[in-house]
Amino acid sequence: MTLDAVLARIDADLPQSLDRLKDLLRIPSISTDPAFNADCARAADWLVEELRSLGFEASARSTPGHPMVVAHSDGPAVAAGRHLLFYGHYDVQPVDPLNLWHRDPFDPEVQDTPKGPVIRARGAGDDKGQFMTFVEAMRAWKAVHGTLPGKLTIFLEGEEESGSPSLIPFMKENAGELAADLAIICDTGMYDDSVPSITTMLRGLAKTEFTIHAANRDLHSGMYGGLARNPLTVLSKILGNLHDETGRITIPGFYDDVAELPDQIREQWQALAFDHAKFLGDVGLSIPAGEQDRTPLEMIWSRPTAEVNGLWGGYNGAGFKTVLPAEAHAKVSFRLVSQQDPHKIVPAFRTWVEAQLPADCRVEWHDAVDGSPASVMSIADPAFEAARAALTEEWARTAAYVGAGGSIPIAGYFKEYLGLDALLIGFGRDDDNIHSPNEKYDLESFHKGIRSWARILAKLA
Amino acid sequence: MTLDAVLARIDADLPQSLDRLKDLLRIPSISTDPAFNADCARAADWLVEELRSLGFEASARSTPGHPMVVAHSDGPAVAAGRHLLFYGHYDVQPVDPLNLWHRDPFDPEVQDTPKGPVIRARGAGDDKGQFMTFVEAMRAWKAVHGTLPGKLTIFLEGEEESGSPSLIPFMKENAGELAADLAIICDTGMYDDSVPSITTMLRGLAKTEFTIHAANRDLHSGMYGGLARNPLTVLSKILGNLHDETGRITIPGFYDDVAELPDQIREQWQALAFDHAKFLGDVGLSIPAGEQDRTPLEMIWSRPTAEVNGLWGGYNGAGFKTVLPAEAHAKVSFRLVSQQDPHKIVPAFRTWVEAQLPADCRVEWHDAVDGSPASVMSIADPAFEAARAALTEEWARTAAYVGAGGSIPIAGYFKEYLGLDALLIGFGRDDDNIHSPNEKYDLESFHKGIRSWARILAKLA
Repeated sequence: MTLDAVLARIDADLPQSLDRLKDLLRIPSISTDPAFNADCARAADWLVEELRSLGFEASARSTPGHPMVVAHSDGPAVAAGRHLLFYGHYDVQPVDPLNLWHRDPFDPEVQDTPKGPVIRARGAGDDKGQFMTFVEAMRAWKAVHGTLPGKLTIFLEGEEESGSPSLIPFMKENAGELAADLAIICDTGMYDDSVPSITTMLRGLAKTEFTIHAANRDLHSGMYGGLARNPLTVLSKILGNLHDETGRITIPGFYDDVAELPDQIREQWQALAFDHAKFLGDVGLSIPAGEQDRTPLEMIWSRPTAEVNGLWGGYNGAGFKTVLPAEAHAKVSFRLVSQQDPHKIVPAFRTWVEAQLPADCRVEWHDAVDGSPASVMSIADPAFEAARAALTEEWARTAAYVGAGGSIPIAGYFKEYLGLDALLIGFGRDDDNIHSPNEKYDLESFHKGIRSWARILAKLA
Repeated sequence: MTLDAVLARIDADLPQSLDRLKDLLRIPSISTDPAFNADCARAADWLVEELRSLGFEASARSTPGHPMVVAHSDGPAVAAGRHLLFYGHYDVQPVDPLNLWHRDPFDPEVQDTPKGPVIRARGAGDDKGQFMTFVEAMRAWKAVHGTLPGKLTIFLEGEEESGSPSLIPFMKENAGELAADLAIICDTGMYDDSVPSITTMLRGLAKTEFTIHAANRDLHSGMYGGLARNPLTVLSKILGNLHDETGRITIPGFYDDVAELPDQIREQWQALAFDHAKFLGDVGLSIPAGEQDRTPLEMIWSRPTAEVNGLWGGYNGAGFKTVLPAEAHAKVSFRLVSQQDPHKIVPAFRTWVEAQLPADCRVEWHDAVDGSPASVMSIADPAFEAARAALTEEWARTAAYVGAGGSIPIAGYFKEYLGLDALLIGFGRDDDNIHSPNEKYDLESFHKGIRSWARILAKLA
């Protein structure tokens, strides 16, 4: 069985795979700091050479920012003509504060820890160690089969940590070249240290900022207090009404486009036995604060939210000022799920606020409606169940479809600009310290990650 | 009838009275700015000379700040042995912004206006022009009677505009010398341009600042939103509950010590026909926001309030940050009436807040309970009705007992440190521009003010 041969090859080649990862980790490709521009270009060139050595037709494509690495295999399309597009990013976060690192962030080293060996360096977990699992799986596949596993495009950007400014223009300009049937994104984590995961639901986001105006100037609370409207009280009353006693959001129509969780997903989430007491306890909290008839995982993965992110008005300096201010301000955002549309949710909120306004107040909205809908992958695509089975075999634990409370913008971009659903699979762990000092990636994640891709491609091919 | 002689003398002497006021207004006795320390001392000395010329035993008494002027007459106590203590202040506000003055603030001039002649200078209305009405009344009285009108102490401070830091220590150290039966304070205004007034109710003040703590650090609203507590929502809900739908404050026991308005006062207030539409319209509002079963005048004069003076938390800079903050903050104050005690009201509020707090939040109170109760003068004292009758005769309009929404700290100090109720009578008008450029005092206020005191003292003597 050739899969066994590929897996054996991966195991035998692990020290060399690790050496190649270390070479890449030694390049300080910090995308946010222009001092490292040449290093970003060097990382792109290194990857182009690497992919060419595997038989890809690869190039570093210039952008107004850092290069995009695009590589194509000329093999046959996998599984009934499917063309896969794999995404990762070779840029890394800055390393400040450097004094908190125990060693040079760009001198990678394998270290033993109580939970097993890890490779420690900036970028080990986000995202070089992750996407190199795919590249190394390609190498073993090629060594055993003599060819790459079907029709593949590899697409690696160098600006993910600085907001991907070139990504959408590049996708638009090269939509034909990037055309594929399914995206694979390797930049997420596992549900926990032992449960491999495919992220299939990501919440969207909508936001708005407003000012409530009452009197035409600040008033003295002695002279006017009790007779004149206080906009801080008006704002408190409105925002205090945002959730009812059961935690449900009270804006009319807010839940209209929210779908119930599919039974298959609900059962999987129940099987995860999420320890919300620990999750909340780690940040000093204890009580699930959302809709009381929902499970904690639903609250963060599949239910929408309305949150006040900023609130201010009146006097906030030292001491006291007995002022009735003229204005009160708030920033409010919504995490969206299912088919909720930012262009319906924000106007519904505005209407709801305005309906509660006393006749001698007015509200000023500060921004155009801005936001993005949720990403919900169609798990009806057989590639999902195939990938889940492959992950389950490799990790000897049932792989889970999981949600993510926040957006991963790249998943939305693939959908919007290339029309692709994405298989979001990664092997990161909660304690990887991504974006922080002493970032690491578990050797187990690296090794089983490579093996996981070999199994996934064997199922899809 | 000697009162007529005194009034005639006042009329005849008006040009000289005005000259003396101008002399005093020329001294830039700005108490907040040390550059004017010598001018404050000069104003005190000028007053000592003036009062000595009237037969008072007067002196300027040094303090850590500006001098106190204290003057005693050795006449018989007025009206059944009553000893009156008259208060005013000779210091004035700074004059910035100087470019908005139409002439030198310390070069007083009588100017014609559509509403009649005024004397324009810093301090004309607050408080030199006001307290000189009393001094000039003494002068005319002395000229006609040969003696001052009974047992009188005149007490003029020079730090009122800078918070009266020396006043309480001076009162304590000289309580014996300042002992009297009734205080008279001339530092207030008339209800409107034609209705003379005695202020008999002043609201008190209590205040508190607090922080609601939720998570032990700021959280990402994608990862935690919907499951983790948002302290801004908690704070909004609590402060949104502060008033019920009828405008009534919901803190248990809040109204326990609030007395209903005496019928006599209620009738007088009704007779004032307060134009709340104009009062609110001037600041861009239209709807009385307080307890809906109370009149607008009650809302500002005789009903207590609970007001949010400051509210803040989360992100308030440009753009957006999808943060669930760890903390939310508020400053809340209460205007107190009747027998409401700051040491009961603030703890009641704290208990009420804490009762609404989710179990995984805590509240931190930032200050000791601070505040002062309301001042409510006993109008049963016949001096009040006597003064009201005298004012009614002079102004040919029924004088009114009025309230004041804010505190006048000096009234509370007289009560607390000298045990005195105060007859608060003044002739200021809404458009006097006190504390602002182009301050003025109406000549009518000055002239009728002097005559008013002559009439009041004739009734009390």
